[in-house]
Amino acid sequence: MTIDLDAFLSTGARGMRRSLIRELLKLTSRSGIISFAGGFPDPATFPVVELQEVTRDVLADQAHRALQYGITEGDPRLRDELVRWLGRDGIAVTRDQILVTNGSQQGLDILGKVFLDPGDVIIVELPSYLAALQVFRTYGAEMLGVPQDDEGMQTDRLADLLADLAAQGRRAKFIYVVPDFQNPSGVTWTEERRRHLLDLARRHNTLVVEDNPYRSVRFAGTAPPPVYALDRDGRTIYLSTFSKTLCPGLRIGWMVAAEEIIAQFVTAKQGMDLCSPSFTQAIAAELLHRDLLAPRLPGIAEVYRRKCDTMLRALQREMPAGVTWTRPEGGLFLWVRLPESMDTEALLREAVEREGVAYVIGTGFHADGGGRHAMRLNFSFPSEEEIEEGIRRLARLVKRHLPLSTPSTATRTQVSD
Amino acid sequence: MTIDLDAFLSTGARGMRRSLIRELLKLTSRSGIISFAGGFPDPATFPVVELQEVTRDVLADQAHRALQYGITEGDPRLRDELVRWLGRDGIAVTRDQILVTNGSQQGLDILGKVFLDPGDVIIVELPSYLAALQVFRTYGAEMLGVPQDDEGMQTDRLADLLADLAAQGRRAKFIYVVPDFQNPSGVTWTEERRRHLLDLARRHNTLVVEDNPYRSVRFAGTAPPPVYALDRDGRTIYLSTFSKTLCPGLRIGWMVAAEEIIAQFVTAKQGMDLCSPSFTQAIAAELLHRDLLAPRLPGIAEVYRRKCDTMLRALQREMPAGVTWTRPEGGLFLWVRLPESMDTEALLREAVEREGVAYVIGTGFHADGGGRHAMRLNFSFPSEEEIEEGIRRLARLVKRHLPLSTPSTATRTQVSD
Repeated sequence: MTIDLDAFLSTGARGMRRSLIRELLKLTSRSGIISFAGGFPDPATFPVVELQEVTRDVLADQAHRALQYGITEGDPRLRDELVRWLGRDGIAVTRDQILVTNGSQQGLDILGKVFLDPGDVIIVELPSYLAALQVFRTYGAEMLGVPQDDEGMQTDRLADLLADLAAQGRRAKFIYVVPDFQNPSGVTWTEERRRHLLDLARRHNTLVVEDNPYRSVRFAGTAPPPVYALDRDGRTIYLSTFSKTLCPGLRIGWMVAAEEIIAQFVTAKQGMDLCSPSFTQAIAAELLHRDLLAPRLPGIAEVYRRKCDTMLRALQREMPAGVTWTRPEGGLFLWVRLPESMDTEALLREAVEREGVAYVIGTGFHADGGGRHAMRLNFSFPSEEEIEEGIRRLARLVKRHLPLSTPSTATRTQVSD
Repeated sequence: MTIDLDAFLSTGARGMRRSLIRELLKLTSRSGIISFAGGFPDPATFPVVELQEVTRDVLADQAHRALQYGITEGDPRLRDELVRWLGRDGIAVTRDQILVTNGSQQGLDILGKVFLDPGDVIIVELPSYLAALQVFRTYGAEMLGVPQDDEGMQTDRLADLLADLAAQGRRAKFIYVVPDFQNPSGVTWTEERRRHLLDLARRHNTLVVEDNPYRSVRFAGTAPPPVYALDRDGRTIYLSTFSKTLCPGLRIGWMVAAEEIIAQFVTAKQGMDLCSPSFTQAIAAELLHRDLLAPRLPGIAEVYRRKCDTMLRALQREMPAGVTWTRPEGGLFLWVRLPESMDTEALLREAVEREGVAYVIGTGFHADGGGRHAMRLNFSFPSEEEIEEGIRRLARLVKRHLPLSTPSTATRTQVSD
């Protein structure tokens, strides 16, 4: 190539970084490496037989529709089924309040496109979902973080932050939260915190983005209502996906919001890809219509409960004092904190090359650059044997680098700092 | 909703307009209306039987892979097949020079994201593809137009424009062209014009974007090489899709460029939707691997040749003097020009409501606001009977509004002005 590519790039593109997760995944495809770094569901949970049946029928009965262009909003049949699906969770909406997206990730990009100008303020959890931070960053957003504890975002500190912003004459465009089994921490917000969040959002006139991909994968405890279901004035935008309950390979995600907001999202998506594939949408609609998905959820949750328990027991058995972790009630991840003086990024190469085990470093999840001594572990994809062996390797690494005196005051209360 | 949405929108979102095509499509879903406004392929061309066979086998043999997350670049098997597919057209590339997108439209959005800052100059044809203009506009691009004639963009005028820009110390980020059976005009560029374009792009150090969704649907004449195949210094970016040769419902598009450029596109797509659906990609890869697509192309071209001929004969028979049109050698559209004093936008309501026939108005395709007396007609989707009847209705409308004296100098040489 004879051109100087840099001279052609947009400001946003010059700031784009390849995802840490992505680069790690490359590293960990070597054989013998146990990876806790990904976020893949267990393929044993995929409804292959049901998909065979439904796909055959879709091609037999509705090929012309399922293979043609669709409307940007998404297959009307699928949206009608999503209305029912969301109703199970106390989210009462109409078809016109739903936009089908190419996975939840496209929803995040749509949020950026529709709401964010460079310099706009948004508020995120500390830690927060890495790929969301990355996409908001490409839109030039200024991201302010509020720490989590075991009950979710510390909304008292959110109140302070919002008051500070107001005093400066500034306002957050939205507050981005993952309230159920958060990625990366595994923490679930209490109902009280959810109500407090909405209260503050109303008082300071900002929007709430509730990213909720894992909600249907609960294997312990009781589910508080989704933030969306508690919102009385239409300021919440809800994102979800079938990637964890059906399979990721269809890339079916959706956004839920007030009609007026969805109309803006539709206009944005139109320029982004015209429409999502009609074929995959027709298949998902038919699966839901035949009620082939909901009955499978307890089985999926059971697979992940077992794997999560295996990881928790292995951590308990193998890890030295001074190491703490969260105990999620669902989802795909848990969050491990080493003693404060340790640095998971500095340890990663040795983890992969000497011990053959991988994780995601904590800093990628922190809008404020924190999380150096934390790591995210995925328990959904590796087998139970791999989980046992992988935690053994990880503990060996940690013990080798453990500082001589470990503070005995280490606590699990605060997820981040 | 109690929020004031406008106060939250980004600058880009405030400028977004719903597509004219889209709004029209709504208007024309009423029964009895013959629509030449869409751009749908004929569903009779979809390989339903082949898809049934291949989909069954994909779910039987590779379900865990085809239903899991894939890499952002796209299914490696599909990209290997695309290397072969592109080779048929003289485009010699490796797998790493290809990015699979969610239709060509996502490729256009990626171009905007990676290259365009507000105020950046790009050059487009007059007329040019409506949805491309719309997406480039959302990135704040300043679009300068160069008129077409029967041989493609008037590259002499492009030379003047590039020289003018250089004199002002400005440069175009890229030149966007649809060289084969252009949407909307149906015009195909001569090889000479393609070479001249590349020569100018090299001299002025700008990129060329070749959007080529229709190339495999040629039903007359001889194909000049793709611009990409003539480029010797890696400044061309090629976009294509299976929407017209397989079906739109899988939404399989792709971008081809130098490795370094593709790497940037991959980073951008990662934030936009992580990856395209593995399932649809596995199906397309398998169709290509079994060579089930190429043998179908002559049959598809024949369907469109017949429909195009029907439309051309009907126009010849029905339209009054002073009306001209293009004679495409492939693709899905042709372009009709009424006498200059007429205005297709002003006539549209009467066309739909009184005559029951729809088209797309010319102005949407003109970056300079021109094209008022032009319209785009689609011949791929309506049946031959509908084409005959629809052109009869359209001619009746035109005759009713024809100015008293029509200049006898009307010519077909210049597509736009």
